Amino acid sequence: MSGAENHSQCKPRLSLAKRVTSEAVGTALLVATVVGSGIMAERLSGGNIALALLANTLATGAALVALILTFGPISGAHFNPVVTFADALERGIPWKEAPAYVVAQVLGGVAGTMCAHMMFGLPILSASRHARSGTAQLFSEFVATFGLLAVIWGCSRLRSSVVAFAVGSYITAAYWFTASTSFANPAVTIARSLSDTFAGIRPADVAGFILAQFLGGITATLLFRWLAPGLIANAKDVLVPHNAIKEIE
Amino acid sequence: MSGAENHSQCKPRLSLAKRVTSEAVGTALLVATVVGSGIMAERLSGGNIALALLANTLATGAALVALILTFGPISGAHFNPVVTFADALERGIPWKEAPAYVVAQVLGGVAGTMCAHMMFGLPILSASRHARSGTAQLFSEFVATFGLLAVIWGCSRLRSSVVAFAVGSYITAAYWFTASTSFANPAVTIARSLSDTFAGIRPADVAGFILAQFLGGITATLLFRWLAPGLIANAKDVLVPHNAIKEIE
Amino acid sequence: MSGAENHSQCKPRLSLAKRVTSEAVGTALLVATVVGSGIMAERLSGGNIALALLANTLATGAALVALILTFGPISGAHFNPVVTFADALERGIPWKEAPAYVVAQVLGGVAGTMCAHMMFGLPILSASRHARSGTAQLFSEFVATFGLLAVIWGCSRLRSSVVAFAVGSYITAAYWFTASTSFANPAVTIARSLSDTFAGIRPADVAGFILAQFLGGITATLLFRWLAPGLIANAKDVLVPHNAIKEIE
Amino acid sequence: MSGAENHSQCKPRLSLAKRVTSEAVGTALLVATVVGSGIMAERLSGGNIALALLANTLATGAALVALILTFGPISGAHFNPVVTFADALERGIPWKEAPAYVVAQVLGGVAGTMCAHMMFGLPILSASRHARSGTAQLFSEFVATFGLLAVIWGCSRLRSSVVAFAVGSYITAAYWFTASTSFANPAVTIARSLSDTFAGIRPADVAGFILAQFLGGITATLLFRWLAPGLIANAKDVLVPHNAIKEIE
Repeated sequence: MSGAENHSQCKPRLSLAKRVTSEAVGTALLVATVVGSGIMAERLSGGNIALALLANTLATGAALVALILTFGPISGAHFNPVVTFADALERGIPWKEAPAYVVAQVLGGVAGTMCAHMMFGLPILSASRHARSGTAQLFSEFVATFGLLAVIWGCSRLRSSVVAFAVGSYITAAYWFTASTSFANPAVTIARSLSDTFAGIRPADVAGFILAQFLGGITATLLFRWLAPGLIANAKDVLVPHNAIKEIE
Repeated sequence: MSGAENHSQCKPRLSLAKRVTSEAVGTALLVATVVGSGIMAERLSGGNIALALLANTLATGAALVALILTFGPISGAHFNPVVTFADALERGIPWKEAPAYVVAQVLGGVAGTMCAHMMFGLPILSASRHARSGTAQLFSEFVATFGLLAVIWGCSRLRSSVVAFAVGSYITAAYWFTASTSFANPAVTIARSLSDTFAGIRPADVAGFILAQFLGGITATLLFRWLAPGLIANAKDVLVPHNAIKEIE
Repeated sequence: MSGAENHSQCKPRLSLAKRVTSEAVGTALLVATVVGSGIMAERLSGGNIALALLANTLATGAALVALILTFGPISGAHFNPVVTFADALERGIPWKEAPAYVVAQVLGGVAGTMCAHMMFGLPILSASRHARSGTAQLFSEFVATFGLLAVIWGCSRLRSSVVAFAVGSYITAAYWFTASTSFANPAVTIARSLSDTFAGIRPADVAGFILAQFLGGITATLLFRWLAPGLIANAKDVLVPHNAIKEIE
Repeated sequence: MSGAENHSQCKPRLSLAKRVTSEAVGTALLVATVVGSGIMAERLSGGNIALALLANTLATGAALVALILTFGPISGAHFNPVVTFADALERGIPWKEAPAYVVAQVLGGVAGTMCAHMMFGLPILSASRHARSGTAQLFSEFVATFGLLAVIWGCSRLRSSVVAFAVGSYITAAYWFTASTSFANPAVTIARSLSDTFAGIRPADVAGFILAQFLGGITATLLFRWLAPGLIANAKDVLVPHNAIKEIE
């Protein structure tokens, strides 16, 4: 989910097969966290939704820190089609690789939902009945994804390990400051539509969420293109971890 | 809110228009977090104020980490007229630029309140009826802002990414150790007066809060001028991120 | 628990006696945290299990950060037989040293349980009656340990202090996203079977947990051997802290 | 509270007057956090002690991160007579300066209690009636302070900003894994005896706590003297921030 690992700048890089596997496994673990912690929180909190969301928030924010640190040096840890699209817009990843990233994120996300359901002894997939619609919800997703991409572009000049903490912190906040609890990620939105649990979203509401997410992400990307144009030109100087992997595609 | 990005030391820097935009957008997202997470927390917590404040605290502290990391390299991430005033006192920002920073912070803050209200389907602005007055409250704001500026000046010699974690941690603590829940920021105080929700403050109580905040901030600045006078002279050595932006005003 | 401190790469290193002591003391403090905070949380939470697990999670995640930073530069801060086994597989620690590490971890863990019981005025050891069995629990432990080793291998190319935050964050999430609350550690599992408190596990359920943990850990290790093969060859470049200890075995 | 700022290694350093002021102000803010957040938490939590301690923990851990980062580069951020004593044992601070440090910590701590009481509109000082006695409590303080000094010595070879996070994390855990909620600090213990609130301790119980704290701290110091003897000899290489202050005593 970081985008900070700007691959076009630092050859050599890993094979597409490895990077796509990294995106799929990372997104699966992210969704397993979102869905699984939602199930656990709802079971234990005895109907106190604030307490359940607090646990769900803590787990998700912490997972993002761990997973971006883990998969960032391999594939950039996008985990998110909006991030991949914005990264391609800024020439961080070649356009021809973007579809493979997105497919991996969506399939990984669905696998994450299945994994969470198996861990909690539930049917492997189930359509959510959790309605999330209306202008306030869509505007929330616009703001949530605008903020996420702002954080990613703003931090991409800092050390790449900082991005993990920034994104984890941002999503921790956004779970509470948006009315939609900040999905901010089309792959995660699709995966959550297949879980009739705390974190679910009705399939009928998915398309609107995804549209709002792309609009928010593109708006932030254009703003930061103006605010901090030196970003891409200097990206290779701050992307340390890639030097640690010697293998060439 | 950091002050660590001591602009006078590290030319080239970005145009004032870009830096002022950065302050406005950053302050808007900060206030949207404070107000929005307060609304969400109050709605979900079923009257348990400790739980609501815990969620409000977690969101605010995390947002500060993310937003200072994001906007710090662009504009210094003050988000706060007291920080801008103190930074000008210490020659970190030219006096002639301070008014533009403050106006951007106040307007950004109000926009943040409006944004939060729109996300939660509330009237776009509403005068708060939340009374916060009396000596204990004013003394709390003095202490809260004294501590905030102490943290900023104390950490400005460390790597600038550390400032984000220090300020986020400090405000997390200050929400609980002060009787006023630590506003510590005139722009945020004004913006919160326009929200009749959990995070609000009665307009009549705003002036006293702002006065106490400036007194606290100036006291800390004078103390650290004596405690650590080498601060400004050495600032340029520790302010890494600015080198990453090549564009010149 | 990190594995990041890849000893074979960076001579000189400390004597085995010191490193084994470090593993024992570190694992004891880790288990004292898990068991002790479980007791405290159960006593104070008045039957609200979500709140108790939230406190237990916060304490465990924070302890991992502190303990890995503390003992990592001395012994690698494995605290976990699966990590030691995987590290030996990847030639990070010689096979002949692994048994001493594992014995120290198990004995340290039991000492940690005793220490927690003494602090809370309980019988020094007591067999747990907390049933944790069935496919969902075992699959949860497989996933939990798969994720833990993925995080360790993924982060071992970054600065070693990052590993502490990544592992602490990962376990914070895993307490909530797995149905078993993520033991993910055979030594800790054995130690927790000797505590008839919140964090306990019935002795009869221990063997299954340990088997699932090893399978999950080995799967992640094989995956990352393919995903990031440059890992070991470059380990010595990123393992800074060992240089700070001059003493030679 | 860090001890990481090993002054004997890195001349020039600040005047004793400045360092002692730093210790007093830092300890005052630390105690104001502990006592103040306890008052706030008790007022808001409606009798739910787990929730109150969770808020108290979050505030204290976060304050430690912020305050050690702030005052560490100036005075070492001991805030704790056991840390000063252990640092003198290891020749980090000259013995002749230790008494001034301890006096500043105790007076600062008492000022912190007064400050918290003023913020919450309470009598400026009040003897606590909160009984904390018995073997389990004393053993808890021994373990708590053993762990604290282990963390400090273990991390003092890493970058000094890491110490702040390690100590903050450790105390976050220790509030929950010890039966005494981990005072681990004689100056803070004295200051808390003067507050008849959530965080208080009966004056009659203070002496036992302080004795147990010194025993725990000395035990850890002796253990780490054996475990990691290269610590002091290499301290100057890792203590970056002091170089940033040019002023000489």
